[in-house]
Amino acid sequence: MEDQVEVVARAFVEHYYYLFDSNRASLASLYQPSSILSFEGQSIVGADQIQQKLSGLPFGQCQHFISTIDSQPSVVAGSIIVFVTGSLKLLDEEHPLKFSQMFQLIPTLDGTFFVQNDIFRLNYA
Amino acid sequence: MEDQVEVVARAFVEHYYYLFDSNRASLASLYQPSSILSFEGQSIVGADQIQQKLSGLPFGQCQHFISTIDSQPSVVAGSIIVFVTGSLKLLDEEHPLKFSQMFQLIPTLDGTFFVQNDIFRLNYA
Repeated sequence: MEDQVEVVARAFVEHYYYLFDSNRASLASLYQPSSILSFEGQSIVGADQIQQKLSGLPFGQCQHFISTIDSQPSVVAGSIIVFVTGSLKLLDEEHPLKFSQMFQLIPTLDGTFFVQNDIFRLNYA
Repeated sequence: MEDQVEVVARAFVEHYYYLFDSNRASLASLYQPSSILSFEGQSIVGADQIQQKLSGLPFGQCQHFISTIDSQPSVVAGSIIVFVTGSLKLLDEEHPLKFSQMFQLIPTLDGTFFVQNDIFRLNYA
């Protein structure tokens, strides 16, 4: 079970940041109306609002580099907590920004997962 | 509800790091046999094992400084996700270490909370 959690977490992280860096608008498909995002202290609820927030961020092309991925089974059967640290390189910035982020993934009836909880913070040096 | 979540999260964070910095062994009271800690990538399950891990960390007196606290309601009624960034000053080290940490708090029958999930990572500069 532990292994399966880790496999899902790694696949999710790869998928999430690939979409973020290549086609940010498509991230909406990972959220549902109940989803909550805390982005640098701002709270946003719902897939549509979260997609608008992410698409409207004041930077264009960016690239995430992942340093660590931790995962644990959560409380509801099949749900998973994913915790990521890494750095974020913006197109026009020389130095990447450190970040940490956590997700709670909830299984769907069709065998995939959606993001119920998402908390993102830059870690200023 | 949102406010109550935030109030609990802030009180928990204050309590948790106060205990960590003043009497680390007493942290065991915040965990249960089902609790999971990921500490710098190492996975530890159960209150006793977690307390042993935290008490056995290779540094004595330390002090946590909190930079940000984010909180969200989790899936099970009354449960809360708490996400912390801050820095950790060890007694013998000049420079504090940046860290980020998340907790999932589950309500107990007597009106308090225990830590079901705990993930800790240092954010190396």
